[in-house]
Amino acid sequence: MADTAAPGHGRDYVHGYSVAEARRLGDQADTLAELLHAGTGYPPGSRVLEAGCGVGAQTVHLLAASPGIRLTAADLSAESLAQARARVAAQAPAAQVGWHHGDLHRLPFPDGSFDHVFLCFVLEHLPDPAAGLAALRRVLRPGGTITVIEGDHGSAFFHPESPAARRTVDHLVRLQAGAGGDGLLGRRLHPLLTAAGFAEVAVRPRTVYADGSRPALVEGFTLRTFVAMVEAVRTDALAAGLTTPEDFDRGVAELRRAAEPGGTFHYAFFKAVAVRP
Amino acid sequence: MADTAAPGHGRDYVHGYSVAEARRLGDQADTLAELLHAGTGYPPGSRVLEAGCGVGAQTVHLLAASPGIRLTAADLSAESLAQARARVAAQAPAAQVGWHHGDLHRLPFPDGSFDHVFLCFVLEHLPDPAAGLAALRRVLRPGGTITVIEGDHGSAFFHPESPAARRTVDHLVRLQAGAGGDGLLGRRLHPLLTAAGFAEVAVRPRTVYADGSRPALVEGFTLRTFVAMVEAVRTDALAAGLTTPEDFDRGVAELRRAAEPGGTFHYAFFKAVAVRP
Repeated sequence: MADTAAPGHGRDYVHGYSVAEARRLGDQADTLAELLHAGTGYPPGSRVLEAGCGVGAQTVHLLAASPGIRLTAADLSAESLAQARARVAAQAPAAQVGWHHGDLHRLPFPDGSFDHVFLCFVLEHLPDPAAGLAALRRVLRPGGTITVIEGDHGSAFFHPESPAARRTVDHLVRLQAGAGGDGLLGRRLHPLLTAAGFAEVAVRPRTVYADGSRPALVEGFTLRTFVAMVEAVRTDALAAGLTTPEDFDRGVAELRRAAEPGGTFHYAFFKAVAVRP
Repeated sequence: MADTAAPGHGRDYVHGYSVAEARRLGDQADTLAELLHAGTGYPPGSRVLEAGCGVGAQTVHLLAASPGIRLTAADLSAESLAQARARVAAQAPAAQVGWHHGDLHRLPFPDGSFDHVFLCFVLEHLPDPAAGLAALRRVLRPGGTITVIEGDHGSAFFHPESPAARRTVDHLVRLQAGAGGDGLLGRRLHPLLTAAGFAEVAVRPRTVYADGSRPALVEGFTLRTFVAMVEAVRTDALAAGLTTPEDFDRGVAELRRAAEPGGTFHYAFFKAVAVRP
Protein backbone atom coordinates (compact mmCIF):
# COMPACT_ATOMS: atom_id res chain seq x y z
CA MET A 1 0.00 0.00 0.00
CA ALA A 2 2.87 2.34 -0.53
CA ASP A 3 4.56 4.07 -3.34
CA THR A 4 7.22 6.12 -1.71
CA ALA A 5 10.13 5.74 0.63
CA ALA A 6 10.50 6.98 4.15
CA PRO A 7 13.04 9.81 4.44
CA GLY A 8 16.28 8.37 5.66
CA HIS A 9 14.87 4.90 5.16
CA GLY A 10 15.30 4.43 1.44
CA ARG A 11 16.93 1.06 1.92
CA ASP A 12 14.42 -0.07 4.47
CA TYR A 13 11.30 0.62 2.39
CA VAL A 14 9.21 -2.27 3.65
CA HIS A 15 7.92 -3.34 0.24
CA GLY A 16 11.26 -3.24 -1.60
CA TYR A 17 12.04 -1.71 -5.00
CA SER A 18 11.77 -4.69 -7.38
CA VAL A 19 10.15 -4.78 -10.80
CA ALA A 20 7.40 -7.02 -9.39
CA GLU A 21 6.79 -4.41 -6.72
CA ALA A 22 6.52 -1.63 -9.32
CA ARG A 23 3.98 -3.73 -11.25
CA ARG A 24 2.04 -4.47 -8.06
CA LEU A 25 1.81 -0.76 -7.34
CA GLY A 26 0.53 -0.08 -10.84
CA ASP A 27 -2.17 -2.78 -10.57
CA GLN A 28 -3.15 -1.56 -7.16
CA ALA A 29 -3.45 2.05 -8.25
CA ASP A 30 -5.61 1.21 -11.26
CA THR A 31 -8.00 -0.96 -9.24
CA LEU A 32 -8.25 1.58 -6.48
CA ALA A 33 -8.09 4.79 -8.47
CA GLU A 34 -11.79 5.48 -8.48
CA LEU A 35 -12.21 4.61 -4.81
CA LEU A 36 -9.29 6.72 -3.62
CA HIS A 37 -9.35 9.68 -6.02
CA ALA A 38 -13.12 10.29 -6.13
CA GLY A 39 -13.78 13.77 -4.80
CA THR A 40 -10.27 15.07 -5.43
CA GLY A 41 -10.12 17.63 -8.21
CA TYR A 42 -8.15 20.87 -8.42
CA PRO A 43 -8.90 23.84 -10.71
CA PRO A 44 -6.65 24.35 -13.74
CA GLY A 45 -3.67 26.49 -12.89
CA SER A 46 -3.56 25.35 -9.25
CA ARG A 47 -0.09 24.83 -7.84
CA VAL A 48 -0.20 21.27 -6.47
CA LEU A 49 2.52 19.34 -4.64
CA GLU A 50 2.47 15.55 -4.60
CA ALA A 51 4.76 14.61 -1.73
CA GLY A 52 6.20 11.11 -2.06
CA CYS A 53 5.05 10.39 -5.62
CA GLY A 54 7.06 7.14 -5.72
CA VAL A 55 6.79 5.39 -9.09
CA GLY A 56 3.92 7.67 -10.11
CA ALA A 57 1.15 5.15 -9.48
CA GLN A 58 -1.13 7.86 -8.03
CA THR A 59 0.39 10.74 -10.00
CA VAL A 60 -1.23 9.68 -13.26
CA HIS A 61 -4.65 9.47 -11.60
CA LEU A 62 -4.15 12.83 -9.93
CA LEU A 63 -3.36 14.37 -13.33
CA ALA A 64 -6.29 12.60 -15.01
CA ALA A 65 -8.72 14.00 -12.43
CA SER A 66 -7.26 17.51 -12.50
CA PRO A 67 -6.04 18.41 -15.97
CA GLY A 68 -4.34 21.77 -16.20
CA ILE A 69 -2.80 21.85 -12.75
CA ARG A 70 0.83 22.82 -12.23
CA LEU A 71 2.10 19.77 -10.42
CA THR A 72 5.33 19.36 -8.50
CA ALA A 73 6.03 15.70 -7.78
CA ALA A 74 8.63 14.99 -5.12
CA ASP A 75 10.26 11.78 -3.94
CA LEU A 76 13.28 10.70 -1.96
CA SER A 77 14.21 7.93 -4.42
CA ALA A 78 15.79 9.02 -7.71
CA GLU A 79 15.00 5.63 -9.18
CA SER A 80 11.31 5.84 -8.29
CA LEU A 81 11.18 9.39 -9.59
CA ALA A 82 12.57 8.26 -12.95
CA GLN A 83 9.85 5.61 -13.18
CA ALA A 84 7.20 8.16 -12.26
CA ARG A 85 8.52 10.49 -14.97
CA ALA A 86 8.33 7.72 -17.58
CA ARG A 87 4.83 6.75 -16.49
CA VAL A 88 3.57 10.32 -16.69
CA ALA A 89 5.24 10.85 -20.06
CA ALA A 90 3.42 7.78 -21.38
CA GLN A 91 0.02 8.38 -19.80
CA ALA A 92 -0.24 12.15 -19.46
CA PRO A 93 2.19 13.62 -21.98
CA ALA A 94 0.59 17.09 -21.91
CA ALA A 95 0.78 17.47 -18.15
CA GLN A 96 2.87 20.26 -16.60
CA VAL A 97 4.98 18.49 -14.00
CA GLY A 98 8.09 19.60 -12.17
CA TRP A 99 10.10 16.78 -10.62
CA HIS A 100 11.86 17.21 -7.32
CA HIS A 101 14.32 14.72 -5.92
CA GLY A 102 14.50 15.22 -2.17
CA ASP A 103 13.16 14.76 1.30
CA LEU A 104 9.67 16.08 2.05
CA HIS A 105 10.92 17.29 5.42
CA ARG A 106 13.37 19.69 3.75
CA LEU A 107 11.63 20.96 0.65
CA PRO A 108 13.46 23.93 -0.90
CA PHE A 109 10.24 25.81 -1.69
CA PRO A 110 9.28 29.13 -0.04
CA ASP A 111 6.47 29.22 2.53
CA GLY A 112 3.01 29.05 0.97
CA SER A 113 4.26 27.92 -2.46
CA PHE A 114 1.36 25.58 -3.12
CA ASP A 115 -2.42 25.81 -3.28
CA HIS A 116 -2.85 22.11 -2.55
CA VAL A 117 -0.78 19.23 -1.23
CA PHE A 118 -1.58 15.59 -1.98
CA LEU A 119 0.03 12.50 -0.49
CA CYS A 120 -0.95 8.87 -0.68
CA PHE A 121 0.64 5.95 1.23
CA VAL A 122 3.46 8.17 2.46
CA LEU A 123 2.88 8.95 6.15
CA GLU A 124 2.79 5.22 6.96
CA HIS A 125 6.52 5.08 6.20
CA LEU A 126 7.65 8.14 8.17
CA PRO A 127 9.25 7.68 11.59
CA ASP A 128 7.61 10.98 12.63
CA PRO A 129 4.51 11.63 10.50
CA ALA A 130 3.63 14.72 12.55
CA ALA A 131 6.95 16.31 11.57
CA GLY A 132 6.27 15.42 7.92
CA LEU A 133 2.87 17.09 8.07
CA ALA A 134 4.33 20.20 9.69
CA ALA A 135 6.90 20.47 6.89
CA LEU A 136 4.15 20.17 4.28
CA ARG A 137 2.01 22.75 6.09
CA ARG A 138 4.80 25.27 5.69
CA VAL A 139 4.79 25.10 1.89
CA LEU A 140 0.97 25.27 1.70
CA ARG A 141 -0.62 28.73 1.43
CA PRO A 142 -3.17 29.80 4.06
CA GLY A 143 -6.57 28.52 2.90
CA GLY A 144 -4.93 25.78 0.85
CA THR A 145 -5.88 22.13 1.34
CA ILE A 146 -4.01 18.97 2.12
CA THR A 147 -5.36 15.58 1.05
CA VAL A 148 -3.93 12.48 2.67
CA ILE A 149 -4.73 8.85 1.85
CA GLU A 150 -3.47 5.98 3.99
CA GLY A 151 -4.27 2.33 4.54
CA ASP A 152 -4.67 0.56 7.86
CA HIS A 153 -3.74 -3.12 7.91
CA GLY A 154 -5.73 -3.63 11.12
CA SER A 155 -8.83 -3.10 8.98
CA ALA A 156 -8.15 -6.30 7.03
CA PHE A 157 -10.51 -9.11 7.90
CA PHE A 158 -11.74 -12.01 5.86
CA HIS A 159 -13.77 -15.16 5.60
CA PRO A 160 -12.86 -17.87 6.31
CA GLU A 161 -11.32 -16.46 9.49
CA SER A 162 -7.86 -17.93 10.09
CA PRO A 163 -5.43 -17.32 12.95
CA ALA A 164 -2.52 -18.36 10.70
CA ALA A 165 -3.52 -15.82 8.04
CA ARG A 166 -3.97 -13.15 10.70
CA ARG A 167 -0.49 -13.79 12.12
CA THR A 168 0.96 -13.49 8.64
CA VAL A 169 -0.73 -10.10 8.11
CA ASP A 170 0.61 -9.04 11.50
CA HIS A 171 4.17 -9.73 10.32
CA LEU A 172 3.71 -6.97 7.77
CA VAL A 173 2.67 -4.53 10.50
CA ARG A 174 5.59 -5.59 12.68
CA LEU A 175 8.15 -5.27 9.85
CA GLN A 176 6.81 -1.83 8.97
CA ALA A 177 7.13 -0.76 12.62
CA GLY A 178 10.65 -2.15 12.64
CA ALA A 179 11.47 0.05 9.62
CA GLY A 180 10.17 3.09 11.52
CA GLY A 181 6.71 3.21 9.95
CA ASP A 182 3.13 2.45 11.00
CA GLY A 183 0.93 0.01 9.09
CA LEU A 184 -2.01 1.12 11.24
CA LEU A 185 -1.72 4.78 10.33
CA GLY A 186 -5.14 5.30 8.72
CA ARG A 187 -6.94 5.43 12.05
CA ARG A 188 -4.51 8.14 13.25
CA LEU A 189 -5.08 10.66 10.44
CA HIS A 190 -7.53 12.83 12.34
CA PRO A 191 -5.39 13.33 15.45
CA LEU A 192 -2.19 13.71 13.39
CA LEU A 193 -3.58 16.43 11.13
CA THR A 194 -5.21 18.19 14.06
CA ALA A 195 -1.98 18.16 16.06
CA ALA A 196 -0.06 19.45 13.03
CA GLY A 197 -2.22 22.59 13.07
CA PHE A 198 -4.58 21.90 10.19
CA ALA A 199 -8.23 23.02 10.42
CA GLU A 200 -11.53 21.55 9.20
CA VAL A 201 -9.99 18.08 9.35
CA ALA A 202 -12.44 15.65 7.73
CA VAL A 203 -11.52 11.96 7.60
CA ARG A 204 -13.63 9.26 5.97
CA PRO A 205 -12.99 5.56 5.46
CA ARG A 206 -12.85 4.36 1.85
CA THR A 207 -13.64 0.70 2.12
CA VAL A 208 -12.88 -2.16 -0.22
CA TYR A 209 -15.12 -5.19 0.25
CA ALA A 210 -14.74 -8.06 -2.20
CA ASP A 211 -16.83 -11.23 -2.44
CA GLY A 212 -17.82 -13.71 -5.13
CA SER A 213 -20.15 -11.19 -6.77
CA ARG A 214 -17.14 -9.00 -7.72
CA PRO A 215 -14.53 -11.23 -9.35
CA ALA A 216 -12.49 -8.30 -10.74
CA LEU A 217 -12.14 -6.81 -7.27
CA VAL A 218 -11.24 -10.22 -5.80
CA GLU A 219 -8.51 -10.54 -8.42
CA GLY A 220 -7.38 -6.91 -8.46
CA PHE A 221 -7.53 -6.16 -4.77
CA THR A 222 -7.68 -9.28 -2.59
CA LEU A 223 -5.10 -11.24 -4.60
CA ARG A 224 -3.01 -8.80 -6.62
CA THR A 225 -2.92 -6.02 -4.04
CA PHE A 226 -3.33 -7.35 -0.53
CA VAL A 227 -2.12 -10.95 -0.72
CA ALA A 228 0.71 -9.84 -3.02
CA MET A 229 1.79 -7.24 -0.46
CA VAL A 230 1.83 -9.84 2.30
CA GLU A 231 3.72 -12.37 0.15
CA ALA A 232 6.32 -9.71 -0.70
CA VAL A 233 7.58 -9.56 2.90
CA ARG A 234 8.29 -13.32 3.13
CA THR A 235 12.08 -12.98 2.99
CA ASP A 236 12.15 -10.14 5.50
CA ALA A 237 9.76 -11.91 7.88
CA LEU A 238 11.97 -15.01 7.83
CA ALA A 239 15.16 -12.95 8.20
CA ALA A 240 13.64 -11.14 11.18
CA GLY A 241 12.81 -14.49 12.78
CA LEU A 242 9.10 -13.65 12.97
CA THR A 243 7.98 -16.94 11.44
CA THR A 244 9.05 -20.17 9.75
CA PRO A 245 8.72 -20.87 6.02
CA GLU A 246 5.97 -23.42 6.79
CA ASP A 247 3.97 -21.05 8.99
CA PHE A 248 4.32 -18.13 6.63
CA ASP A 249 3.25 -20.18 3.62
CA ARG A 250 0.33 -21.68 5.50
CA GLY A 251 -0.78 -18.17 6.51
CA VAL A 252 -0.66 -16.98 2.90
CA ALA A 253 -2.48 -20.10 1.69
CA GLU A 254 -5.24 -19.54 4.24
CA LEU A 255 -5.43 -15.84 3.36
CA ARG A 256 -5.91 -16.84 -0.29
CA ARG A 257 -9.08 -18.68 0.70
CA ALA A 258 -10.70 -15.26 1.05
CA ALA A 259 -10.42 -15.06 -2.76
CA GLU A 260 -11.92 -18.48 -3.39
CA PRO A 261 -15.65 -19.19 -3.87
CA GLY A 262 -17.44 -18.44 -0.60
CA GLY A 263 -14.65 -16.20 0.64
CA THR A 264 -14.85 -12.49 1.45
CA PHE A 265 -12.31 -9.74 2.15
CA HIS A 266 -12.56 -6.30 3.80
CA TYR A 267 -10.04 -3.46 3.92
CA ALA A 268 -10.44 0.20 4.86
CA PHE A 269 -8.37 3.06 3.50
CA PHE A 270 -8.77 6.46 5.08
CA LYS A 271 -8.92 9.72 3.17
CA ALA A 272 -8.45 13.03 4.94
CA VAL A 273 -8.91 16.56 3.70
CA ALA A 274 -7.89 19.54 5.83
CA VAL A 275 -7.19 23.23 5.43
CA ARG A 276 -4.15 25.28 6.35
CA PRO A 277 -5.56 28.08 8.52
CA MET B 1 -25.67 -5.29 18.24
CA ALA B 2 -28.66 -7.46 18.69
CA ASP B 3 -32.30 -7.15 19.36
CA THR B 4 -33.61 -10.67 19.21
CA ALA B 5 -32.98 -14.03 20.74
CA ALA B 6 -31.58 -17.17 19.21
CA PRO B 7 -34.22 -19.87 18.80
CA GLY B 8 -33.79 -22.37 21.56
CA HIS B 9 -31.32 -20.00 23.20
CA GLY B 10 -33.66 -17.50 24.84
CA ARG B 11 -31.87 -17.74 28.17
CA ASP B 12 -28.44 -17.55 26.59
CA TYR B 13 -29.03 -14.33 24.63
CA VAL B 14 -25.54 -12.91 24.96
CA HIS B 15 -26.61 -9.36 25.74
CA GLY B 16 -29.25 -10.23 28.37
CA TYR B 17 -32.78 -8.83 28.72
CA SER B 18 -32.37 -6.00 31.24
CA VAL B 19 -33.94 -2.54 31.18
CA ALA B 20 -30.48 -1.06 30.54
CA GLU B 21 -30.12 -3.42 27.59
CA ALA B 22 -33.48 -2.32 26.17
CA ARG B 23 -32.39 1.33 26.48
CA ARG B 24 -29.04 0.55 24.86
CA LEU B 25 -30.83 -1.04 21.92
CA GLY B 26 -33.05 2.02 21.53
CA ASP B 27 -30.08 4.44 21.56
CA GLN B 28 -28.21 2.26 19.14
CA ALA B 29 -31.10 2.03 16.72
CA ASP B 30 -31.68 5.79 16.68
CA THR B 31 -28.01 6.59 16.10
CA LEU B 32 -27.69 3.98 13.41
CA ALA B 33 -31.11 4.21 11.81
CA GLU B 34 -30.04 6.34 8.87
CA LEU B 35 -26.90 4.33 8.22
CA LEU B 36 -28.61 0.95 8.34
CA HIS B 37 -32.05 1.68 6.87
CA ALA B 38 -30.98 3.93 3.99
CA GLY B 39 -32.05 2.27 0.75
CA THR B 40 -34.68 0.04 2.35
CA GLY B 41 -38.22 1.06 1.39
CA TYR B 42 -41.18 -1.13 0.47
CA PRO B 43 -44.28 -0.05 -1.50
CA PRO B 44 -47.52 0.50 0.44
CA GLY B 45 -49.51 -2.71 0.69
CA SER B 46 -46.42 -4.94 0.60
CA ARG B 47 -46.54 -7.94 2.89
CA VAL B 48 -43.35 -7.66 4.94
CA LEU B 49 -42.00 -10.02 7.61
CA GLU B 50 -39.56 -8.76 10.21
CA ALA B 51 -37.99 -11.90 11.62
CA GLY B 52 -36.60 -11.42 15.12
CA CYS B 53 -38.01 -7.96 15.80
CA GLY B 54 -36.85 -8.09 19.44
CA VAL B 55 -37.87 -4.97 21.38
CA GLY B 56 -38.81 -3.18 18.16
CA ALA B 57 -35.68 -1.06 17.92
CA GLN B 58 -35.54 -1.51 14.13
CA THR B 59 -39.27 -2.05 13.64
CA VAL B 60 -40.12 1.61 14.17
CA HIS B 61 -37.50 2.69 11.62
CA LEU B 62 -38.72 0.08 9.15
CA LEU B 63 -42.26 1.45 9.50
CA ALA B 64 -41.08 5.07 9.24
CA ALA B 65 -39.28 4.33 5.98
CA SER B 66 -42.13 2.27 4.51
CA PRO B 67 -45.50 3.66 5.60
CA GLY B 68 -48.46 1.62 4.42
CA ILE B 69 -46.83 -1.81 4.47
CA ARG B 70 -48.58 -4.76 6.08
CA LEU B 71 -45.94 -5.83 8.57
CA THR B 72 -45.71 -9.10 10.47
CA ALA B 73 -43.21 -8.82 13.32
CA ALA B 74 -42.03 -12.09 14.83
CA ASP B 75 -39.89 -12.88 17.84
CA LEU B 76 -39.08 -15.81 20.07
CA SER B 77 -39.35 -13.77 23.28
CA ALA B 78 -42.85 -12.81 24.44
CA GLU B 79 -41.36 -10.15 26.68
CA SER B 80 -39.42 -8.51 23.85
CA LEU B 81 -42.48 -8.70 21.63
CA ALA B 82 -44.55 -6.85 24.24
CA GLN B 83 -41.95 -4.10 24.35
CA ALA B 84 -41.88 -3.91 20.56
CA ARG B 85 -45.67 -3.61 20.52
CA ALA B 86 -45.58 -0.76 23.04
CA ARG B 87 -42.83 1.02 21.11
CA VAL B 88 -44.71 0.76 17.81
CA ALA B 89 -47.98 1.88 19.46
CA ALA B 90 -46.17 4.97 20.74
CA GLN B 91 -44.14 5.83 17.66
CA ALA B 92 -46.18 4.50 14.73
CA PRO B 93 -49.78 4.22 16.00
CA ALA B 94 -51.27 4.06 12.51
CA ALA B 95 -49.10 1.16 11.36
CA GLN B 96 -50.67 -2.17 10.37
CA VAL B 97 -48.67 -4.73 12.33
CA GLY B 98 -49.42 -8.34 13.12
CA TRP B 99 -47.40 -9.76 16.02
CA HIS B 100 -46.20 -13.32 15.99
CA HIS B 101 -44.67 -15.05 19.00
CA GLY B 102 -42.58 -17.95 17.77
CA ASP B 103 -39.44 -19.38 16.28
CA LEU B 104 -38.38 -18.12 12.85
CA HIS B 105 -37.41 -21.68 11.94
CA ARG B 106 -41.01 -22.85 12.32
CA LEU B 107 -43.17 -20.01 11.10
CA PRO B 108 -46.81 -21.07 10.65
CA PHE B 109 -47.23 -19.12 7.41
CA PRO B 110 -47.82 -20.76 4.00
CA ASP B 111 -45.07 -20.82 1.40
CA GLY B 112 -44.61 -17.48 -0.36
CA SER B 113 -46.67 -15.49 2.17
CA PHE B 114 -44.45 -12.41 2.07
CA ASP B 115 -43.19 -9.99 -0.55
CA HIS B 116 -40.20 -9.01 1.56
CA VAL B 117 -38.33 -10.28 4.59
CA PHE B 118 -36.22 -8.03 6.80
CA LEU B 119 -33.93 -9.07 9.63
CA CYS B 120 -31.37 -7.10 11.58
CA PHE B 121 -28.89 -8.48 14.16
CA VAL B 122 -30.61 -11.87 14.15
CA LEU B 123 -28.42 -14.34 12.24
CA GLU B 124 -25.49 -13.61 14.57
CA HIS B 125 -27.42 -15.40 17.34
CA LEU B 126 -28.48 -18.51 15.42
CA PRO B 127 -26.56 -21.75 15.88
CA ASP B 128 -27.32 -22.55 12.23
CA PRO B 129 -27.88 -19.31 10.29
CA ALA B 130 -28.13 -21.21 7.00
CA ALA B 131 -31.12 -23.15 8.35
CA GLY B 132 -32.70 -19.88 9.49
CA LEU B 133 -32.28 -18.37 6.03
CA ALA B 134 -33.75 -21.48 4.40
CA ALA B 135 -36.83 -21.22 6.65
CA LEU B 136 -37.25 -17.56 5.72
CA ARG B 137 -36.83 -18.32 2.03
CA ARG B 138 -39.79 -20.67 2.23
CA VAL B 139 -42.21 -17.93 3.34
CA LEU B 140 -40.91 -15.45 0.75
CA ARG B 141 -42.63 -15.39 -2.65
CA PRO B 142 -40.53 -15.98 -5.79
CA GLY B 143 -39.14 -12.60 -6.84
CA GLY B 144 -39.43 -11.29 -3.28
CA THR B 145 -36.43 -9.81 -1.50
CA ILE B 146 -34.67 -10.49 1.74
CA THR B 147 -32.69 -7.74 3.50
CA VAL B 148 -30.23 -8.76 6.19
CA ILE B 149 -28.16 -6.48 8.41
CA GLU B 150 -25.43 -7.82 10.68
CA GLY B 151 -22.45 -6.48 12.57
CA ASP B 152 -18.95 -7.95 12.68
CA HIS B 153 -16.96 -7.36 15.84
CA GLY B 154 -13.74 -8.18 14.01
CA SER B 155 -14.23 -4.89 12.16
CA ALA B 156 -13.79 -2.90 15.37
CA PHE B 157 -10.46 -1.06 15.54
CA PHE B 158 -9.50 2.10 17.28
CA HIS B 159 -6.87 4.62 18.22
CA PRO B 160 -5.06 4.43 20.53
CA GLU B 161 -4.44 0.77 19.72
CA SER B 162 -4.51 -1.35 22.89
CA PRO B 163 -3.96 -5.10 23.30
CA ALA B 164 -5.97 -5.01 26.56
CA ALA B 165 -8.94 -3.37 24.83
CA ARG B 166 -8.69 -5.84 21.96
CA ARG B 167 -8.74 -8.82 24.33
CA THR B 168 -11.83 -7.40 26.01
CA VAL B 169 -13.64 -7.08 22.68
CA ASP B 170 -12.59 -10.65 21.90
CA HIS B 171 -14.36 -11.85 25.06
CA LEU B 172 -17.63 -10.70 23.50
CA VAL B 173 -16.93 -12.77 20.38
CA ARG B 174 -15.98 -15.79 22.48
CA LEU B 175 -19.09 -15.54 24.69
CA GLN B 176 -21.30 -15.23 21.64
CA ALA B 177 -19.67 -18.32 20.12
CA GLY B 178 -20.21 -20.11 23.44
CA ALA B 179 -23.92 -19.26 23.23
CA GLY B 180 -24.07 -20.77 19.73
CA GLY B 181 -23.81 -17.51 17.79
CA ASP B 182 -21.19 -15.73 15.69
CA GLY B 183 -20.06 -12.19 16.42
CA LEU B 184 -18.13 -12.20 13.13
CA LEU B 185 -21.17 -12.96 11.00
CA GLY B 186 -21.20 -9.84 8.83
CA ARG B 187 -18.35 -11.07 6.62
CA ARG B 188 -20.23 -14.35 6.03
CA LEU B 189 -23.45 -12.86 4.63
CA HIS B 190 -22.59 -13.36 0.98
CA PRO B 191 -21.69 -17.07 1.22
CA LEU B 192 -24.59 -17.76 3.62
CA LEU B 193 -27.25 -16.21 1.39
CA THR B 194 -25.76 -17.81 -1.70
CA ALA B 195 -25.70 -21.25 -0.06
CA ALA B 196 -29.32 -20.79 1.11
CA GLY B 197 -30.40 -20.49 -2.52
CA PHE B 198 -30.91 -16.75 -2.84
CA ALA B 199 -30.02 -14.98 -6.09
CA GLU B 200 -28.59 -11.54 -6.92
CA VAL B 201 -26.90 -11.47 -3.52
CA ALA B 202 -25.46 -7.97 -3.01
CA VAL B 203 -23.59 -7.24 0.22
CA ARG B 204 -22.12 -3.86 1.15
CA PRO B 205 -20.38 -2.69 4.29
CA ARG B 206 -22.06 0.16 6.18
CA THR B 207 -19.24 1.68 8.14
CA VAL B 208 -19.31 3.79 11.27
CA TYR B 209 -16.18 5.88 11.78
CA ALA B 210 -16.14 8.31 14.69
CA ASP B 211 -13.47 10.86 15.58
CA GLY B 212 -13.29 14.21 17.37
CA SER B 213 -15.02 15.99 14.50
CA ARG B 214 -18.23 14.03 15.22
CA PRO B 215 -18.97 14.25 18.93
CA ALA B 216 -22.56 12.96 18.61
CA LEU B 217 -21.33 9.80 16.90
CA VAL B 218 -18.56 9.35 19.48
CA GLU B 219 -21.18 9.57 22.21
CA GLY B 220 -23.98 7.67 20.44
CA PHE B 221 -21.93 4.94 18.84
CA THR B 222 -18.46 4.54 20.33
CA LEU B 223 -19.59 4.96 23.94
CA ARG B 224 -23.31 4.24 24.16
CA THR B 225 -23.39 1.45 21.59
CA PHE B 226 -20.07 -0.31 21.32
CA VAL B 227 -18.38 0.26 24.68
CA ALA B 228 -21.76 -0.28 26.40
CA MET B 229 -22.14 -3.62 24.61
CA VAL B 230 -18.68 -4.72 25.72
CA GLU B 231 -19.26 -3.59 29.30
CA ALA B 232 -22.55 -5.51 29.40
CA VAL B 233 -20.76 -8.88 29.18
CA ARG B 234 -18.51 -8.24 32.21
CA THR B 235 -20.35 -10.65 34.52
CA ASP B 236 -20.50 -13.39 31.92
CA ALA B 237 -16.86 -12.95 30.93
CA LEU B 238 -15.81 -13.29 34.58
CA ALA B 239 -18.14 -16.26 35.15
CA ALA B 240 -16.69 -17.98 32.09
CA GLY B 241 -13.19 -17.47 33.44
CA LEU B 242 -12.11 -15.53 30.35
CA THR B 243 -10.61 -12.66 32.32
CA THR B 244 -10.10 -11.07 35.74
CA PRO B 245 -12.00 -8.02 37.00
CA GLU B 246 -8.80 -5.97 36.78
CA ASP B 247 -8.00 -7.02 33.21
CA PHE B 248 -11.57 -6.56 32.02
CA ASP B 249 -11.84 -3.10 33.55
CA ARG B 250 -8.48 -2.08 32.18
CA GLY B 251 -9.57 -3.23 28.71
CA VAL B 252 -12.77 -1.18 28.92
CA ALA B 253 -10.87 1.86 30.22
CA GLU B 254 -8.43 1.62 27.31
CA LEU B 255 -11.28 1.13 24.84
CA ARG B 256 -12.87 4.32 26.17
CA ARG B 257 -9.77 6.27 25.11
CA ALA B 258 -11.06 5.89 21.55
CA ALA B 259 -13.82 8.31 22.60
CA GLU B 260 -11.48 10.85 24.18
CA PRO B 261 -9.86 13.77 22.33
CA GLY B 262 -7.45 12.38 19.74
CA GLY B 263 -9.16 8.99 19.70
CA THR B 264 -10.89 7.32 16.75
CA PHE B 265 -13.17 4.30 16.32
CA HIS B 266 -14.13 2.15 13.31
CA TYR B 267 -16.86 -0.47 12.96
CA ALA B 268 -18.41 -2.10 9.89
CA PHE B 269 -21.94 -3.40 9.62
CA PHE B 270 -22.89 -5.39 6.56
CA LYS B 271 -26.15 -5.04 4.69
CA ALA B 272 -27.26 -7.68 2.21
CA VAL B 273 -30.13 -7.69 -0.24
CA ALA B 274 -31.02 -10.81 -2.20
CA VAL B 275 -33.88 -12.22 -4.23
CA ARG B 276 -35.76 -15.47 -3.90
CA PRO B 277 -35.53 -17.02 -7.38
